[in-house]
Amino acid sequence: MSQFLSPEAARLAPYTPGEQPRDQQYIKLNTNESPFPPSPAVAAAVAGADAQALQLYSDPTCAALHRAIARYYGVEERNVLAGNGSDEILAFAFRAFCGTGCPAVYADVTYGFYQAQTALFGLESVRVPLREDYSLAVEDYMAAQGTVFLANPNAPTGLTLPPSEIRRLLEADQERVVVVDEAYVDFGAESCVSLIGEYDNLLVVQTMSKSRSLAGGRVGFAIGCPALIEDLNRVKYSFNPYNVNRMSMAAAVAAMEDKDYFTRCCAAIRENRTWTASALEALGFSVLPSSANFLFAKHPRLEGQALYQGLKARGILVRWFDGPRTRDFVRITVGSRPQMEALSAAVRDILA
Amino acid sequence: MSQFLSPEAARLAPYTPGEQPRDQQYIKLNTNESPFPPSPAVAAAVAGADAQALQLYSDPTCAALHRAIARYYGVEERNVLAGNGSDEILAFAFRAFCGTGCPAVYADVTYGFYQAQTALFGLESVRVPLREDYSLAVEDYMAAQGTVFLANPNAPTGLTLPPSEIRRLLEADQERVVVVDEAYVDFGAESCVSLIGEYDNLLVVQTMSKSRSLAGGRVGFAIGCPALIEDLNRVKYSFNPYNVNRMSMAAAVAAMEDKDYFTRCCAAIRENRTWTASALEALGFSVLPSSANFLFAKHPRLEGQALYQGLKARGILVRWFDGPRTRDFVRITVGSRPQMEALSAAVRDILA
Repeated sequence: MSQFLSPEAARLAPYTPGEQPRDQQYIKLNTNESPFPPSPAVAAAVAGADAQALQLYSDPTCAALHRAIARYYGVEERNVLAGNGSDEILAFAFRAFCGTGCPAVYADVTYGFYQAQTALFGLESVRVPLREDYSLAVEDYMAAQGTVFLANPNAPTGLTLPPSEIRRLLEADQERVVVVDEAYVDFGAESCVSLIGEYDNLLVVQTMSKSRSLAGGRVGFAIGCPALIEDLNRVKYSFNPYNVNRMSMAAAVAAMEDKDYFTRCCAAIRENRTWTASALEALGFSVLPSSANFLFAKHPRLEGQALYQGLKARGILVRWFDGPRTRDFVRITVGSRPQMEALSAAVRDILA
Repeated sequence: MSQFLSPEAARLAPYTPGEQPRDQQYIKLNTNESPFPPSPAVAAAVAGADAQALQLYSDPTCAALHRAIARYYGVEERNVLAGNGSDEILAFAFRAFCGTGCPAVYADVTYGFYQAQTALFGLESVRVPLREDYSLAVEDYMAAQGTVFLANPNAPTGLTLPPSEIRRLLEADQERVVVVDEAYVDFGAESCVSLIGEYDNLLVVQTMSKSRSLAGGRVGFAIGCPALIEDLNRVKYSFNPYNVNRMSMAAAVAAMEDKDYFTRCCAAIRENRTWTASALEALGFSVLPSSANFLFAKHPRLEGQALYQGLKARGILVRWFDGPRTRDFVRITVGSRPQMEALSAAVRDILA
C-alpha cells in the first residue's frame, strides 16, 4: 500500500480468487470451471474475419452478442447487457441500484464478491443469515430495505430457490430491485428470466464462464426490463464503453448458438454430480443438495482445511473458505468422471 | 432511467464514444484506431493452444503479459499492471488515488473520460484551463491539490510535453500522484516510463489500442513503482480479478514482442501525419502540431460541425467535440495514405 492510497481505497475488501497455478499440473476443482472445452464452433468463430479486425474497436453496443442472447432466451435485445464477465455486470448493478439510503442486501454465506463490490463503491450492506440448514428463506428479506442480491443457486452452498419463491420476493416490495445472480443456474435450477416481462424490479445476471465453458473468455450478461438495462449502460459508459473485446464477443455468440453442445455438457455435469455426491456420502460426508456444478461437503472426522490441504498434497485443488459457517466444508467443482474418480480415491486415501 | 437508479448513478456523466457504424462502409477517422492490422504474430498467438483453453479462467496475475511489457520497457514485472483497455486502468487509478481531500486535477480540454470516471466514484475535480494556444503549462498545476491526470500527448489537441517538464511537476510536490496517460506517446512523443525508477509518485498509463493495432482486443497497462501497482491491484481485486481474457492476453504478448512491425507502423503514421498536415494547411487549415495519430484542425471559413457533417456525407467519419474551446475544430485520425488522400479530396470538395 502506498502513501497515496485514498481513504476510500484503503477501506476496500479485495476478493481472493481461487488459486490459478501455472507451474504444476493439478486437477483443478477449485474455481467451478467446466471440464469441457467450449463448443467447437467457438474456435472457428474466434479465428473468423470479424474477430481478427482487431485494429478496430469492438462494438460498444455488443449488438451481435445481445442478439444471440436475446434469441436464446426469447427476449428483446434491449433486455440484455453483456460485460467483461458477470463480475463486471454485478459491479454495474451495485453502482446503479445501491447508494444513499439504499444498501446492498445479501446473505451471510454467498458469493464473496458482493462484499468486495459493496466496498468498491462505499456502499452500506445488510447481511441476512442463511437458515441453520444453509437454506435461504425469502421471508427473511421481506422487510429489508435495499437492493437484494441473491445468488441462485447460491454459492458455495449449491442450494437453489424456485422462481415461485423469488416471485414472492419481487411482489412483496416492487419499489426495490432484486438482482438474481444465476451463474450456476444451467446445472439444474430454474431461471427467473421468464419473469422479467412481469417485474420491472427484477435483474437476472448470468455468466458464460461455467455452463458455456468460457471462463477464459470473460463474458457475462444481465437480462431485465429496458429501463434497468439503460441504468446499467449509464454506468458502463462511465467506466469502459468498449468492455467486451472482439474475440470474446465472437466466442460468446458461437457458444450461445450451439445449444446442443451446451445441453450435453450440462447433462454430463449433472450426472457426474450425482455420482460424486453418492461417492462422498458413501465415505461418510454430508453433502448439501446441489443444483450447481459444485458440491459443498463436510466430513465428521476431517476439518475443511485439512481436507483442502490433503487434497492439494495429492494434486487436487478444491476451495476452502475460512468463515465461521463455511470452514467445516470444502467446495468441490464437479468435473469430468475421471477427475471425480481421482477425487474420490484421494479422499479415501486421506481418510485411511 | 428507471425509478430505481441511485442518486449517485443519477449524477454520472456517461462518455459518448465515437460512432462505430456497422451497416455502412465509412472511412473511419474518428476513434484514432490504427489503419494497419495487428502484427501477423497476433492471429497465430490467438489461435494457439493456451488461448483456446477457454474453459479455464485467465491468469488473474497476467504474468505472461506483464513479463512481455516489462521486458519491452526494461522494468520489472511488479512495475506493471494490465487491464481491459486503458479506460479500466484509469478507473482503477481514479479509485485508488482520489477521494476525500484529494480531487482529480486535469485540463479543461483533454480526454473526456476523466470526467466520466470522476463522476463514477463521486470524486471532486479541478479543471485547469489549457493556455490560449492549447498548450499545457506545468506551472498551472504546481499549486493544485490533488491527483493530476495528464494526457501526454494530450487529446484532442495532439500537443505534447517533454519528460523534463513532467519531471518538474513530479518534483514540485512529491506528496501527490501524477498519472501520465500516454495513449498516443508512440507516435512521436517521449515516454515518462524512464522516470518511474526515480519517482514513486509517477504512474504511466498506456494502451495497445493505437500504436499496437489492438483496439478490438482491449488491453491497456500501467507502469509505476511497486507500491502504486499494489494499490491498483487492490481496486482490481475489488472489481474484476480476471479482467484480461486469455485471447487478449495472448494477442497482447505477441503484439508487444513484434517490435519491428510496431516500429514500421508508427513510422508510417508519422509520415502520413506530416503529409496530411501539409495538405490541410495548403487548403487554409490551422493544424495544431501533433505528436499523436490524429490532427486537431480548424478552417477559417468552415465551422467544425459543418466540416464533420460534410465529411460524413462524403463517407468519412471524423470526431467533433461540441465544447467552447473545441467546436471550431475537428479531430482527424491519421490513417493510411489512401485514406488521407480521400480525406483531402473530400475537404477540397466541401470547400469548393
